[in-house]
Amino acid sequence: MSSLQSPRVTVRRLPERGHYDRASLDAVLDAGFVCHLGLAVEGQPYVIPTIYGRSGDDLLVHGSAASRTLRLLGKGVPACLSVTHLDGVVMARSTFHSSLNYRSAVLLGTAHPLEERAAKREALRAITEHFLKGRWDESRQPTDREVDATSVLRLPITEASAKIRVGPPSDDEEDYALPIWAGVIPLRLVADSPVPDPRLDPGLRLPPSAQSFLERHR
Amino acid sequence: MSSLQSPRVTVRRLPERGHYDRASLDAVLDAGFVCHLGLAVEGQPYVIPTIYGRSGDDLLVHGSAASRTLRLLGKGVPACLSVTHLDGVVMARSTFHSSLNYRSAVLLGTAHPLEERAAKREALRAITEHFLKGRWDESRQPTDREVDATSVLRLPITEASAKIRVGPPSDDEEDYALPIWAGVIPLRLVADSPVPDPRLDPGLRLPPSAQSFLERHR
Repeated sequence: MSSLQSPRVTVRRLPERGHYDRASLDAVLDAGFVCHLGLAVEGQPYVIPTIYGRSGDDLLVHGSAASRTLRLLGKGVPACLSVTHLDGVVMARSTFHSSLNYRSAVLLGTAHPLEERAAKREALRAITEHFLKGRWDESRQPTDREVDATSVLRLPITEASAKIRVGPPSDDEEDYALPIWAGVIPLRLVADSPVPDPRLDPGLRLPPSAQSFLERHR
Repeated sequence: MSSLQSPRVTVRRLPERGHYDRASLDAVLDAGFVCHLGLAVEGQPYVIPTIYGRSGDDLLVHGSAASRTLRLLGKGVPACLSVTHLDGVVMARSTFHSSLNYRSAVLLGTAHPLEERAAKREALRAITEHFLKGRWDESRQPTDREVDATSVLRLPITEASAKIRVGPPSDDEEDYALPIWAGVIPLRLVADSPVPDPRLDPGLRLPPSAQSFLERHR
């Protein structure tokens, strides 16, 4: 299996938590829809939360054509894209070994802007479908003017790592005898009952895209 | 009221979502415990998820003394720290106006390492208490050796913005007549029933820190 590993993405502390195969990486990427995108302007890093999608070997990020971040990245500035899922609070007996259970992905590379309208439209479809499966065909799709007003960046998946922690705390052996509660509080992102738009025609029913999202976030 | 605003943190797209006062910022920071920390090494940005705490006018981040990231930042490299809470999926009638409800904070500055053991210990206490109120006194506190093995960075809160979106979708006026469902799917981070460590003395009860965390993540 081809590896996404490089010295820059190698997990150095607790290396057993690092994974460099596409299946591990894609499992983390496909479970989420918000990433933190990093770029640097004259040595100053910026970290911006944004929606993403995946299409084959590319990660796709979009934003307003007016967005400073995407404009700068569009010139080919190096980028870092991180996706993090919080799975639990790991309460060890010692503060030193207290931790989180999580699944995270970090990708490095150079992001390039999509220029062609058709390619941008297809990328916007992929981002929407990654986020809300089926929504593209349910919704009023973007006009040419809206596509032109949107920047889309493509970051090829070539250099990346996934980092995963699961399971109970790992205390120092001598601490297990201490009378201190230890364990894991599981965490998950949950969707509550949808709130219809105040202006919604009450005859319209919740669409399949929303039902599918609710099932994946129960 | 003093402002945290600067050109670098000003919200340019949809400026009505930007807030620059400490109360707005602290509300976002205090509602979370995981940030995405950005730094740049020779133009390449890195974005790393990590636990944080707040103590007065400082944000505090810790990691292994072996961590490349914290080592580099410790030299005084510029940093960016982002905290993001997902509050809902905003399903507009048009894909163009589909969005998320969220609260996010972005801080810029230069992070400096704490050198004194007593200051580091106090910072570790603040991080633990930010995360799990009461846990510091419940747990086996760090030894000098553990404190020495941990890097702690302090980022003064001087230049920052909070960005908040709430409420229903905002569609183009002519789209409201379309027969497309629109509304918000609320999202929240939820804690499930704690899973005791397999080696836990069954006589030990769930401590107040965990009970408090559960109450805040129901």
